[in-house]
Amino acid sequence: MTWKRWLLGTPLETERFRDERLRIPIALAVFSSDALSSVAYATEEILLVLSLAGAAALGYSIPISGVIVLLLAILIASYRQTIHAYPDGGGSYIVARENLGTLWGLVAAAALLLDYILTVAVSTAAGAAAVTSAWPRLLHYRVAVGLLFLLLLAVGNLRGLRQSGRIFAVPTYLFIFSMVSLIVTGVVRAGLGLPPVEPPMATIPLATHDVTLFLLMRAFSAGCAALTGIEAISNGVQAFRKPEARNASTTLMIMGGILAFFFMGTSYLAHVYTVVPGVGQTVVSQLGRAVFGTGLLYYLLQFATASILMVAANTAFADFPRLSSILARDRFVPRQLANLGDRLVFSNGILILAGSAGFLVIMFGGSTHGLIPLYAVGVFLAFTLSQAGMVARHLRHKGERYRLHAVVNAAGATATGAALLVIAVTKFIQGAWIVILLIPLFVFCFLKIHRHYFYVRQQLSLREIEPERPLRHTAVVPMSAVNRATIYALRYAKSIAHEVEAVHVAIDPQRVEQIREQWKQWGGGVPLRILESPYRSIVQPLVDHIDELMHGRRGNEMVTVVLPEFVTAHWWEGLLHNQSAFLIKGALLFKPGVVVTSVPFHFSR
Amino acid sequence: MTWKRWLLGTPLETERFRDERLRIPIALAVFSSDALSSVAYATEEILLVLSLAGAAALGYSIPISGVIVLLLAILIASYRQTIHAYPDGGGSYIVARENLGTLWGLVAAAALLLDYILTVAVSTAAGAAAVTSAWPRLLHYRVAVGLLFLLLLAVGNLRGLRQSGRIFAVPTYLFIFSMVSLIVTGVVRAGLGLPPVEPPMATIPLATHDVTLFLLMRAFSAGCAALTGIEAISNGVQAFRKPEARNASTTLMIMGGILAFFFMGTSYLAHVYTVVPGVGQTVVSQLGRAVFGTGLLYYLLQFATASILMVAANTAFADFPRLSSILARDRFVPRQLANLGDRLVFSNGILILAGSAGFLVIMFGGSTHGLIPLYAVGVFLAFTLSQAGMVARHLRHKGERYRLHAVVNAAGATATGAALLVIAVTKFIQGAWIVILLIPLFVFCFLKIHRHYFYVRQQLSLREIEPERPLRHTAVVPMSAVNRATIYALRYAKSIAHEVEAVHVAIDPQRVEQIREQWKQWGGGVPLRILESPYRSIVQPLVDHIDELMHGRRGNEMVTVVLPEFVTAHWWEGLLHNQSAFLIKGALLFKPGVVVTSVPFHFSR
Repeated sequence: MTWKRWLLGTPLETERFRDERLRIPIALAVFSSDALSSVAYATEEILLVLSLAGAAALGYSIPISGVIVLLLAILIASYRQTIHAYPDGGGSYIVARENLGTLWGLVAAAALLLDYILTVAVSTAAGAAAVTSAWPRLLHYRVAVGLLFLLLLAVGNLRGLRQSGRIFAVPTYLFIFSMVSLIVTGVVRAGLGLPPVEPPMATIPLATHDVTLFLLMRAFSAGCAALTGIEAISNGVQAFRKPEARNASTTLMIMGGILAFFFMGTSYLAHVYTVVPGVGQTVVSQLGRAVFGTGLLYYLLQFATASILMVAANTAFADFPRLSSILARDRFVPRQLANLGDRLVFSNGILILAGSAGFLVIMFGGSTHGLIPLYAVGVFLAFTLSQAGMVARHLRHKGERYRLHAVVNAAGATATGAALLVIAVTKFIQGAWIVILLIPLFVFCFLKIHRHYFYVRQQLSLREIEPERPLRHTAVVPMSAVNRATIYALRYAKSIAHEVEAVHVAIDPQRVEQIREQWKQWGGGVPLRILESPYRSIVQPLVDHIDELMHGRRGNEMVTVVLPEFVTAHWWEGLLHNQSAFLIKGALLFKPGVVVTSVPFHFSR
Repeated sequence: MTWKRWLLGTPLETERFRDERLRIPIALAVFSSDALSSVAYATEEILLVLSLAGAAALGYSIPISGVIVLLLAILIASYRQTIHAYPDGGGSYIVARENLGTLWGLVAAAALLLDYILTVAVSTAAGAAAVTSAWPRLLHYRVAVGLLFLLLLAVGNLRGLRQSGRIFAVPTYLFIFSMVSLIVTGVVRAGLGLPPVEPPMATIPLATHDVTLFLLMRAFSAGCAALTGIEAISNGVQAFRKPEARNASTTLMIMGGILAFFFMGTSYLAHVYTVVPGVGQTVVSQLGRAVFGTGLLYYLLQFATASILMVAANTAFADFPRLSSILARDRFVPRQLANLGDRLVFSNGILILAGSAGFLVIMFGGSTHGLIPLYAVGVFLAFTLSQAGMVARHLRHKGERYRLHAVVNAAGATATGAALLVIAVTKFIQGAWIVILLIPLFVFCFLKIHRHYFYVRQQLSLREIEPERPLRHTAVVPMSAVNRATIYALRYAKSIAHEVEAVHVAIDPQRVEQIREQWKQWGGGVPLRILESPYRSIVQPLVDHIDELMHGRRGNEMVTVVLPEFVTAHWWEGLLHNQSAFLIKGALLFKPGVVVTSVPFHFSR
């Protein structure tokens, strides 16, 4: 397993779990990247919707960005209260569950899990787009580029949180530097009346729609993708250094300020330079070429964009496993999700997240635009539930100035609720329906799983266990040929059971004759039974035979099936042998009173 | 397993294998579709290369198509001889192996296997392109559309050959009808000087290259994709009704005629209507709209194109499993590939083919254009080897008029060999290198596998087997908690072994205390051993403990590890439990003298 060590690092002792805490600059890099990086695609998606109504409509992107920044301010005010009320980590699941009841908590959890997956998918797709904008030759390989990003993220996260924090701090600050350079240079150049260094691709879109309220709302919905990730900080308060709540709150404010600046700046520049989306290059890439020319600064911008998008995806890699481990402890998802891996991270959650996001990237051919309609529904539902939960909490606890606090959270809940409605309606046909369908399905599964664990506990209980009686064994040794491995299995069978029989499933009549002959010499007195198989199945005749043997047995009588199993010197050689043993085990697993044992036969080369 | 029956049909008895033979009209549909369907992309790829040199260069497509048709004629003459010389099926592998030696046979086999995978990938990608040309809304889902096609093909083929022949005859004839209508109507309309019903998208490509010999050769290479599939008939002579050789030969001739007509017709129409590729619509789709308008006939054409491409992919689904079963019988690939499935088809080969092609479709984002450079290298190598083998055969056997026959095959070998060189050189950078790298790798694996089977046979031999001595057992029962399942496992262990001990790996100190307490009541005198685990691993401490137990044992002393295993009422519930049993088995498999037994515990709901 040395390759695993090399890839993931040496195991960490359980004791070290509490040490993995983040300072503000690192935390800003880890938690705010999701929001910041969305300027890489959110502005573009707004423009893409508006371009349906022709070039003149593109100007609406500025007021729409303004509304989104306003929503951001409301959200931040509302979430600061959550952080202080839940210094141990107040994810939407916990807040909604505690204040609105288990069912709403699970709805919030389902919504968030889906949105984390989408964050990863959208961010890697957008990251691939940043790369293919700079190197158009890679356009055909954007799915492969996206999957490569996912792989790096999964490996990075399997190594552990603090180290991944450090790995990812550099790109975030690089992106902040690049974007500030872009916006300041762009605004100055435009102010001086200088022409773009490289004019954006001048494809003037044909208007196919009018500028309707619905279209503007669709553009707004597309832009709301920028707000996902705000909740990351309140979910991850535990990951901050002490005093956790205050540090988290400060980080939240810094993030909000930067995001508002980037978002307004990009929209303004896109307007000034009349950049049009959907021409095989991202809006940010076109802006970069217009402001910097295709030089060092431009490539730095694209590199930083791709990198911060990876960090953004990484936010979800911190939060998805964390939330699913909480759900696992509450027994709503498989409990393997609560296991700490070698490196003190929730490895299973990381793998599931990477797998699901990879599936989406593949299914949507690596297209950010295709994924956007699924995005943001979940997170706005979680926002609304979490803040509604906070209102309920204020009204119940009646703490200091609780009326004011309740009003702030109620404003947040109302604003995000309204946005949720707009998003769900305007994006429904393009893909939001998938998420709206999946959320109740997830909740259904959570409840089903919870019930299963309840029944398991009941049935494993030792109450009223029947008294011990000595067991009586019959051993059955299936074999396809008489060879050294079969003979060893037979010897083992004789040593554990009172009665032993060998069986052979007849596929090839010639072989049957050969085996009968050999059995006379090697069988050692054990009876050999030949089973017919007209459909060439090995498993079915054997299962039927075992059923016959078990018929009419008492509770203390058992059949043990002893299988010779080939163990090859190299793993790949194992693929060269029939996996009948595996199929037989699977088929007999469900029969009470039947135990299957493999006797390994080791090949030396 | 009723869903399996419903999907794949009821099992067929071995006896019925010989009945699955095809008549000419069905055989034409099954075997010639690969070649015929290539007009859906081959002309387009020629134009795409030429368009690099601007609009004026597009006219070269007609002479290039002429050269390819000439090559087709030479190939058909050459392959007719192969069919008559090998009436039992003369695939390149068999012909090359028999006449040039095993190594060349394996090279041909590797080349063909790769090309079958590429046929499936290219055809499904092109089929998806036909669909997205007609419904541009689906453009984002082309990977998903391609994978859906693959799924249908895999299921169809798992059901059995003759039935798939029938399923696929209709679309082939529909395509022939549609293409004939398109070409005849198009030529007549052009002759009458009528304008196109819908003018093709008038994007005039900018010339970035000059018309060089290299560019023309690249265009030729791209068009050579049209010739893959010619060998399908000679591989599958066995599948024809009697007289097999004559029927196969007739089918080959018919196919050649139709292909030449389609190929020249499409190139001519593309020239007359100045169709330009690479604008989100296929060339055939643009021609269809130009000649028919976007009406019923157009949609029929697109439907027929997508359908015949599926039939084309199906050719490979007939040949890949057939070739790999031959290789398996010769022990060059895993012998599972020689197993006939329930429905008398080589199921494993079908699944591997579908999986590999799906991987390619995903990796290339469903782009035909991205896959084309990998295509045709393999098949032209196989062509050359097969015909060179035929030359060697004629010269050795010296049959009637053998000099003439040798000249025909030599002409074929020379022509395809020259084409191979052109293809390998001009497509090398774009992707042919992948195939050129993989072929020797495959051959290496074939030889490695062959050697493995040889050693296995040796080691399984019963010669000098040691005499039987009674075995002595120690049973070890690992457990994470004291519950009903553990107690049952313990009872089983006591019944098969002389010595028994229970072990618990300490992850959680609280639990250790609890287990010690419970063991006093339930342990029944069996000693309990607690193993420390600082890194939270369940498996490693257990493995170390077993190693200790085994240390210094004699050959007839064994350790049996008895694991309680949860069997849930529904398969999905199994996912809700720790798979530690599985990991423990994997870790102990390689230890001589250790046997692992699972004692199932059945949950009722």
